[in-house]
Amino acid sequence: MTARRISDSALRRLSHYLRFLESFEVEGRATISSGDLAARGGMTSAQVRKDLSLFGSFGKRGLGYPVPELRARLAAILGVGRRWDVALAGAGKLGAALYAYDGFRRRGFHVAAVFDVDPRKIGRRWGQLEVEDVAGLGPSVRAKGVEIGIVVTPAEAAQEVADAMVAAGITAILNFAPRKLVVSDGVTLRDVNLAIELEALCFALTHEGWEIGR
Amino acid sequence: MTARRISDSALRRLSHYLRFLESFEVEGRATISSGDLAARGGMTSAQVRKDLSLFGSFGKRGLGYPVPELRARLAAILGVGRRWDVALAGAGKLGAALYAYDGFRRRGFHVAAVFDVDPRKIGRRWGQLEVEDVAGLGPSVRAKGVEIGIVVTPAEAAQEVADAMVAAGITAILNFAPRKLVVSDGVTLRDVNLAIELEALCFALTHEGWEIGR
Repeated sequence: MTARRISDSALRRLSHYLRFLESFEVEGRATISSGDLAARGGMTSAQVRKDLSLFGSFGKRGLGYPVPELRARLAAILGVGRRWDVALAGAGKLGAALYAYDGFRRRGFHVAAVFDVDPRKIGRRWGQLEVEDVAGLGPSVRAKGVEIGIVVTPAEAAQEVADAMVAAGITAILNFAPRKLVVSDGVTLRDVNLAIELEALCFALTHEGWEIGR
Repeated sequence: MTARRISDSALRRLSHYLRFLESFEVEGRATISSGDLAARGGMTSAQVRKDLSLFGSFGKRGLGYPVPELRARLAAILGVGRRWDVALAGAGKLGAALYAYDGFRRRGFHVAAVFDVDPRKIGRRWGQLEVEDVAGLGPSVRAKGVEIGIVVTPAEAAQEVADAMVAAGITAILNFAPRKLVVSDGVTLRDVNLAIELEALCFALTHEGWEIGR
């Protein structure tokens, strides 16, 4: 480990490298160059080498990277390849979609609890789970050892739910509610604002010829 | 207009500035400084000034920015504040969640068509819409003047659907399918990979003390 800071975009690229390496492995490639990785993602090979160098040295100059080793090291760096228990707050449509989202399960993310405030939703079965009253979030999250919280409540309820998660010991929160949450230092918060993704498309449609870079 | 390129992160920040300005306007603030904007988003005021300067000059040195004007100019820059017709390919759980997603409607995104390949889903009513056969995507998208496509199909089907969208004249695609799509030059593609958002949380949980920057 040679650095203590990583940019959000570098971190996203690491996730992409991991996916490319998984494909290379399926294709039976034994070694790849930084250029091979770069080509898959539309990056430069200098960028790939720089991103990887944040975490020490990989591969041998001129020989490329051994695919299975680099894949395993990247998985370890990202902290994937183990099971992570997730709590979902908000049993609405987006919550249901995330619960069923195959991409989560394949990466080891396991929804261990679902919470809602609506008496009509509480008690409903979601697969092996039962929707729980959000009032009991703290004890349930502690009992289940949940480490990651996903907030899919309406905007008005999001801060209160995030506070309850943090009070219950959760230190990593993914927020889909369209509002800015405040969390204490030591808690990692990521926002997924779907409208902002669409706005970037509007920008591109409105500004023909502009390039949107990484 | 003084630039022809904007970084993805600067573009996201513009979307956030717009949201902050909307709040300031609701709060009845007449003018704000770059520092006020920066404080809301955890950015620096130099960053705010730099981002805005991409699009000419705003405000007067020492007087700050007039809130309603800056809000209107940012909305115009982003291309929001008008209605955008969107086609949704994939009438599954995530498609349904996006269809119902309030954040889209509030921003003027209007789902004008929903497509699926599954005969059990085709013909079902979604509010004012009927789920259409994806085989008819081209004529339907053209007839409705759809400009933005959202891909929420399984990974295997995503490329074919994106190709059909592009063939129908769509030049802006938001892809939720967990695979890399190839589109021709002139088409703007954005990927929302929900597992990658969670992986960034895993990284933070695995690397205590590391800072993930913007």
